[in-house]
Amino acid sequence: MTNTDEVTRIAFAELKTLLARVFERHGTSAEVAAVLADNCASAQRDGSESHGVFRIPGYLSTLASGWVDGRAVPQVEDIAPGLVAVDAGNGFAQPALAAARGLLLDKVRHNGIAMLAIRNSHHFAALWPDVEPFAREGLVALAFVNSMACVVPYGGRKPLFGTNPISFAAPRAGADPLVFDLATSAIAHGDVQIAAREGQLLPEGYGVDSDGRPTCDPAAILNGGALLPFGGYKGSALSMMVELLAAALTGGNFSFEFDWSQHPGAKTPWTGELLIVIDPSRGAGSNFAERTATLVREMAAAGQTRQPGDRRYRQRAESARAGVAIASEDLAYLRGLLG
Amino acid sequence: MTNTDEVTRIAFAELKTLLARVFERHGTSAEVAAVLADNCASAQRDGSESHGVFRIPGYLSTLASGWVDGRAVPQVEDIAPGLVAVDAGNGFAQPALAAARGLLLDKVRHNGIAMLAIRNSHHFAALWPDVEPFAREGLVALAFVNSMACVVPYGGRKPLFGTNPISFAAPRAGADPLVFDLATSAIAHGDVQIAAREGQLLPEGYGVDSDGRPTCDPAAILNGGALLPFGGYKGSALSMMVELLAAALTGGNFSFEFDWSQHPGAKTPWTGELLIVIDPSRGAGSNFAERTATLVREMAAAGQTRQPGDRRYRQRAESARAGVAIASEDLAYLRGLLG
Repeated sequence: MTNTDEVTRIAFAELKTLLARVFERHGTSAEVAAVLADNCASAQRDGSESHGVFRIPGYLSTLASGWVDGRAVPQVEDIAPGLVAVDAGNGFAQPALAAARGLLLDKVRHNGIAMLAIRNSHHFAALWPDVEPFAREGLVALAFVNSMACVVPYGGRKPLFGTNPISFAAPRAGADPLVFDLATSAIAHGDVQIAAREGQLLPEGYGVDSDGRPTCDPAAILNGGALLPFGGYKGSALSMMVELLAAALTGGNFSFEFDWSQHPGAKTPWTGELLIVIDPSRGAGSNFAERTATLVREMAAAGQTRQPGDRRYRQRAESARAGVAIASEDLAYLRGLLG
Repeated sequence: MTNTDEVTRIAFAELKTLLARVFERHGTSAEVAAVLADNCASAQRDGSESHGVFRIPGYLSTLASGWVDGRAVPQVEDIAPGLVAVDAGNGFAQPALAAARGLLLDKVRHNGIAMLAIRNSHHFAALWPDVEPFAREGLVALAFVNSMACVVPYGGRKPLFGTNPISFAAPRAGADPLVFDLATSAIAHGDVQIAAREGQLLPEGYGVDSDGRPTCDPAAILNGGALLPFGGYKGSALSMMVELLAAALTGGNFSFEFDWSQHPGAKTPWTGELLIVIDPSRGAGSNFAERTATLVREMAAAGQTRQPGDRRYRQRAESARAGVAIASEDLAYLRGLLG
């Protein structure tokens, strides 16, 4: 996986099939392979560079290390009228979500709000693919996932929190859903890796080195250093909330609790994920999708030129037209993995 | 209401009674007066200066203007197994929450998660008092409230969002609940008012003047200027989410939708509020309060010296010991309001 200027275009379905074969060849079940391939190909399609094919070496080294169970069968538990829980069996979070999705939707439609608590799971992907599909069914969805200790709490010296993203999706009349996916760290870990790979410095306030001193060098952050929360104490408080919702509430590990030292090559955080899904048609906000469209129109009128998700949808349209862009070298790498 | 160095100590119960009499004398029902007095006295007790007695002139000028109905009787609607809605009848949000609380708790205990959607309401107070009591009953609570157009969306020029706070409360074993209440603006509006009153400059990045240019002058922000979201585009996305949850989902007004120009003296935003309450004992996280305590212990070990809510609880203990601190001039002002 090196940087290259030469880019190939590949059909989305072809990329998905290729990735599924890679996953299956390297230790996952066919079911898990299909879910992860769709997730990874979607990120590549939408220009989420740090969560696309870029992630494959990390997935494979993790599978090879025995840290994650690529053949785990998620155990769905119907806990309460508003709560579905899943023991992911030390497998990936996305197949656990897929397994629980039908029951969750039933509960949301019946109650107006329901919750999915995934534990004993590994999340190594973007978070927006977990929420966007709910918004396409007219629902509002919030997702929280904790990761691995790499963020220093506000005022502290040692990393404790994960990058702990919050993702939100809302239906919007006459347009794609309004979706954001934001790390509560000042920068996503994948973007630090990309900056290090490309030899770029980061802005101030993004991270500290191994001595806890501020640094702009992505390599210093990756080599024993840590990230800072976004927005000072407020981002730190939100990151803490993500630990409580995604781990404490689900029964998953906090970001600082797991020890993968016996699994060299392991990259995927072994934690938990929480989803809260709401049916706006049950409440006073029955014209919710129209209201979302109104808000976005006013945001544009106030001068906000780029709305959350815009870049992804633009890239997605371009990929549908011309094929998904992938570095030729990366495509060769993927094909080589099947050899 | 001017600044003064002379401070009086008053018993919490006495302050509450005094405030209730003030509210009732100035246009609220006894029921509304009791709820608002408890809320306002609690903020004063806990050192939340910008939401304590400081707010009284704003409450009273609003009541005098006819903008808010101080005698409104909230209409509680049992919408779905997981959803309670309240039409606050153009009254305050806190009495609406109080009226719906019992039904909401029943739904939370039964379903594991439930939601309270308040609309047609005015919220002029701190948000933490809305969530902390749930955590004292072992529940996790999230609250979102939008306010009045005073925050410029990221990259924009005109104010559109409110200060749009998010508040979170979680039970913690052996200690007070872990609670935060954070404006998604770079600074709370009340704190800008206090800075203006005290003639202090604000840090950079907090606001813009009436031409949309960055300024550190609180007066320039208050006189036709606006605030910025905290944490750049991420805080802006969260503020947008608060508009959708607190207004679009409840049926309330967006922060930019109401027109109080016919009500000189009106200060209270006419919007909505959403609460999401979760019972952790129903899920895999049945030891939730212990897990919260573990996380806070690790935050302290990582060097975070001040935890969310710490200052409030310290001030609360001091107020219990010595009485609630209030500027002598403010106390005289309150007593004068009964004359």
